[in-house]
Amino acid sequence: MKLVLLRHGESEWNLSNRFTGWTDVDLSPNGRREAELAGQLMLEAGLDFDLCFTSYLKRAIHTLNLALAQMDREWLPVDKSWKLNERHYGALQGLNKAETAAKYGEEQVHIWRRSYGVPPPALLPDDERNPARLPMYRGVSPEALPLTESLQDTVARVIPYYHKTIWPRIAKGERVLIAAHGNSLRALAMQLEGMTPEAVISLDLPTGIPLVYELSAEGKVLSKAYLGDAEKVAEQIRKVTRQGKIESLANQGTAPYEKDSRA
Amino acid sequence: MKLVLLRHGESEWNLSNRFTGWTDVDLSPNGRREAELAGQLMLEAGLDFDLCFTSYLKRAIHTLNLALAQMDREWLPVDKSWKLNERHYGALQGLNKAETAAKYGEEQVHIWRRSYGVPPPALLPDDERNPARLPMYRGVSPEALPLTESLQDTVARVIPYYHKTIWPRIAKGERVLIAAHGNSLRALAMQLEGMTPEAVISLDLPTGIPLVYELSAEGKVLSKAYLGDAEKVAEQIRKVTRQGKIESLANQGTAPYEKDSRA
Repeated sequence: MKLVLLRHGESEWNLSNRFTGWTDVDLSPNGRREAELAGQLMLEAGLDFDLCFTSYLKRAIHTLNLALAQMDREWLPVDKSWKLNERHYGALQGLNKAETAAKYGEEQVHIWRRSYGVPPPALLPDDERNPARLPMYRGVSPEALPLTESLQDTVARVIPYYHKTIWPRIAKGERVLIAAHGNSLRALAMQLEGMTPEAVISLDLPTGIPLVYELSAEGKVLSKAYLGDAEKVAEQIRKVTRQGKIESLANQGTAPYEKDSRA
Repeated sequence: MKLVLLRHGESEWNLSNRFTGWTDVDLSPNGRREAELAGQLMLEAGLDFDLCFTSYLKRAIHTLNLALAQMDREWLPVDKSWKLNERHYGALQGLNKAETAAKYGEEQVHIWRRSYGVPPPALLPDDERNPARLPMYRGVSPEALPLTESLQDTVARVIPYYHKTIWPRIAKGERVLIAAHGNSLRALAMQLEGMTPEAVISLDLPTGIPLVYELSAEGKVLSKAYLGDAEKVAEQIRKVTRQGKIESLANQGTAPYEKDSRA
């Protein structure tokens, strides 16, 4: 049984390097190209699907649509759920690096970014960014919606959704593609690979590179492989890591913003 | 209760004026613009939806996606079904006007186009266009798939799908948008408005103009209105009809190809 994870590529907020979270920004032209290349990689690998999952956010939905178009599979059923949304970044959403550091201090921001259990400051309920106030989440009971999330909180909504909605379809033999976000996919990888919180924090899935898991009948990972030219994938991972390091140096030890700028 | 029907706009085969049917051609740039304008019309009219339906064919799927993008409603659930596909045009699919006339004679083609119950010649089972041989329909039992269809055949698959899958959602109070094709929407209009076969044959829904039905609790039509500027809509309908007439004259009484060139 196969499960493929696809992280969306560059969004319109990448250049301004702002915390995105549940802000519904679109892909940049580069991000659209990444999605199309991901579709070509899956096509060349002979992959096919029966069912797709994505989040409510258009950067993931568009990534899925563009990849499926390359594979001539736009007619496949697609299930959208807010449970696959990016981690909610609370009051940090919309702030850029400089603004965040000025407001909260770099050390504090580092903790929010790189810890497993510490959420950023919550949105106030009357904030217009409160998901309970947005049409997008009108079908969800307000108590279920976050005003901020730690990675742990994201894991706590993604994993039950996986067990309840995604895994039963895989177990039935359906081939599943999930197009989502850095942190919701981290949560899935944590579950699938049995990672510790420490391990999952340092996991960075490359954008636009489909990750193919082979699963046992019990849902255990038998193999894991990135699609495409191994050297290119390695370069993409190095690039992500390098950006993180450069950021870290430039900020004298603060969090690698670039590394997570799609969060 | 409201139900909105949206007919997709110009496709890539419009210029070459070929029978399209189940051939999966994409929208032309004009067709994409029509879809976006339809989305703007619905937005300006204050329409909103809970659920969308479309066919397996990308000209309808893209129409829906482009319209929903204008309304910031891409996160809505979308049900795709081959039951909403265009009428299957059998062995005529892919042929242009001249080819069809040369092969079958103009009078015969007129009968296939403008009668209710007479289907064009069927595809042979080993034809590569046989839906049972295409990945797109691998989830459908081959006996259910047509090799050709009269409008009556199209009605015979659309109406049960409406009763079984669409109407129960409307009856629950959900606001439904259906993006589909000239003939599958004719079938729906026939059911909703209780039209005769003669009436439905001369019904031509304008492309890209949302048609809003208000329905009673029993599913009867209380009102029917095209969105947008009444004069523009009238002009669009006149245009469709005029194209048909010019074609008819040019072909000395044969079928109005332009009128149905999106079929």
